[in-house]
Amino acid sequence: MNAREDAGRQIRELIEYCQEAAGRKDYAVIGRLYAAGAKFMPAHAPLAVGPVAATEIWRAMLSLPNMVLSWTPATIDASAAGDLAYVAGSYALAFDSEAGRREDRGKYVAVWQKIDGAWKMVADISNSDLPVA
Amino acid sequence: MNAREDAGRQIRELIEYCQEAAGRKDYAVIGRLYAAGAKFMPAHAPLAVGPVAATEIWRAMLSLPNMVLSWTPATIDASAAGDLAYVAGSYALAFDSEAGRREDRGKYVAVWQKIDGAWKMVADISNSDLPVA
Repeated sequence: MNAREDAGRQIRELIEYCQEAAGRKDYAVIGRLYAAGAKFMPAHAPLAVGPVAATEIWRAMLSLPNMVLSWTPATIDASAAGDLAYVAGSYALAFDSEAGRREDRGKYVAVWQKIDGAWKMVADISNSDLPVA
Repeated sequence: MNAREDAGRQIRELIEYCQEAAGRKDYAVIGRLYAAGAKFMPAHAPLAVGPVAATEIWRAMLSLPNMVLSWTPATIDASAAGDLAYVAGSYALAFDSEAGRREDRGKYVAVWQKIDGAWKMVADISNSDLPVA
């Protein structure tokens, strides 16, 4: 297995690790996967920089009432040397709001960089497929 | 200059080339910078795949009445070998709508890959900083 394929496999495992953490609402585990200075870009909110800010956004999202979140990495690809990688995929999110059940689906890109031997997200951005209500 | 820095410089030049093309509403030039199979992810619209679909979205955006678009690449970084790179930045967009002047600002991530010696975008996604109206 070459470095590029190896990186792809490592990123896939980290995504599964994140998905399991999200399932048990363990936002701290997810937050630690963001690099210092990582750019986390939630839709309709300002840029958030670094793992502390990213953790807080994950905490708030995973705390939504009856929240169900899933995401699917459709593309995972890495550089030849396995030091930079990106993921492009889709997500589905549902939760209860004061106006009733809210359901959203959309797409996302995450960029991972190997920093001191460990993969960290350096950018993470998503947007909705649905028209603005 | 190493391969990583060289890639960063090349990407910066391509961004300036895109910005000049956008200024003269030359959507075809921008569209050709998307790879076959590129994932272009406009907000509140479905995933668009490949240069033909990307070109059409750029054509529509650059055709908005009295459209003013600018974007700023805050981060440009590449893999050590200079074969994969990402850009994270911000944008500002304004145009006339039936409901009056619309102004938006937000953030974006673009992933570039060197394919057969030429840099192409393989993923491009943005979202708004502003609350949903």
